[in-house]
Amino acid sequence: MPSMWRLYQFPLCPFSRKIRLLMGEKQIAYDMVREDPWAASDMFYNLNPAGRTPVLVDAEREIVLSDSRAISEYFEETVDKAPMINGTVANRAEIRRLVALFDENFYADVTAPLLSERMKKRIVLRQPPDSRALREAMKMAHGHLDYMDYLIDNRPWLAGSQMSLADLAAAAQISVADYLGGIDWKGHEQTRGWYSVFKSRPSFRPLLTERMEVIQPPAHYAQIDI
Amino acid sequence: MPSMWRLYQFPLCPFSRKIRLLMGEKQIAYDMVREDPWAASDMFYNLNPAGRTPVLVDAEREIVLSDSRAISEYFEETVDKAPMINGTVANRAEIRRLVALFDENFYADVTAPLLSERMKKRIVLRQPPDSRALREAMKMAHGHLDYMDYLIDNRPWLAGSQMSLADLAAAAQISVADYLGGIDWKGHEQTRGWYSVFKSRPSFRPLLTERMEVIQPPAHYAQIDI
Repeated sequence: MPSMWRLYQFPLCPFSRKIRLLMGEKQIAYDMVREDPWAASDMFYNLNPAGRTPVLVDAEREIVLSDSRAISEYFEETVDKAPMINGTVANRAEIRRLVALFDENFYADVTAPLLSERMKKRIVLRQPPDSRALREAMKMAHGHLDYMDYLIDNRPWLAGSQMSLADLAAAAQISVADYLGGIDWKGHEQTRGWYSVFKSRPSFRPLLTERMEVIQPPAHYAQIDI
Repeated sequence: MPSMWRLYQFPLCPFSRKIRLLMGEKQIAYDMVREDPWAASDMFYNLNPAGRTPVLVDAEREIVLSDSRAISEYFEETVDKAPMINGTVANRAEIRRLVALFDENFYADVTAPLLSERMKKRIVLRQPPDSRALREAMKMAHGHLDYMDYLIDNRPWLAGSQMSLADLAAAAQISVADYLGGIDWKGHEQTRGWYSVFKSRPSFRPLLTERMEVIQPPAHYAQIDI
């Protein structure tokens, strides 16, 4: 069966990772096209005027989807398997609140500065990272992990009794931050336990084995028992 | 009938304005509590760890909603009147893509710098605005209005044949940018026409008559025929 969906992404895009986890859990087939944020082509801007990954294209059916939350809602509405915006209306509001918290706050506080210092400066600008910005991002990561510890102390999964898009959004951001050496797991046993269960899921495996050129993750990054 | 919902907001919060437009169109009653972004209380952080407006509370039913997209989806799921994430699954994906474009890109490019230069510096920091930052925001606004002109040339409303959350999200951002003098309407006849129809709706009126302390909008701001 030919793959229907084509995903425009780059290996360390946390929003593309969220969609890959979602498609993995829902067992939706796709292939990938590399689209680096610092070299977006005119063709890519035509697909998504926001100029951001992920973008999903089904050329045969002439469907172009962009924005990771719009894509998530689309699959929730069209694919019954593994509902990820699940539960009561209150649960669903809680899932979407947490997705926004990870997509916007965790990303702005932690993932974006790490990508800037350790990816863009390394690959594009060829500058050393700013160690103060790295320390600040790691400090912000601690605050976010404290909040996750608190959630996991009170619920089996981040948003409630079932795995949801909130877990996928959090795992996607954390996986990129961890790849870039921005997560100090000490003192975050609850979140570490949650993340290690997550890392062992089939949907997560392909992400853990990928590398982005010269940037190497720390030794623990791909180990599923840590 | 006592008002059920309490909305935490400040007059120039574009995301609160989007929710007020949505609740207006759906005829959902609410009252408001002022919550300034530079003076968020501990109580407010308890309601929303992201520390952002809007937050909606129904104390009697013990419901706390935050994140403007999560709130929009909640009302879409619970209130039949005036569906704003409407149409086919493809339309709904297009609506959500455009909401993200206005919430994220228009906000970051235009509304956020205007709020920083003309509101925060005026009220909190007591500094003059940076005229280069203002010029840059206005230049970015032109680009976004060009894209809106293009959409409106091809469709009755921004996302398709019906008014949708995309229109509300765009109108909310534009209304704040226009209040702060950041919109030059010259050359944007299509968007100006769309916005003037919008301004005359009952859901929009309460927003146009509000003022935020010492900050005064330009003369055309509240005129519905311009």
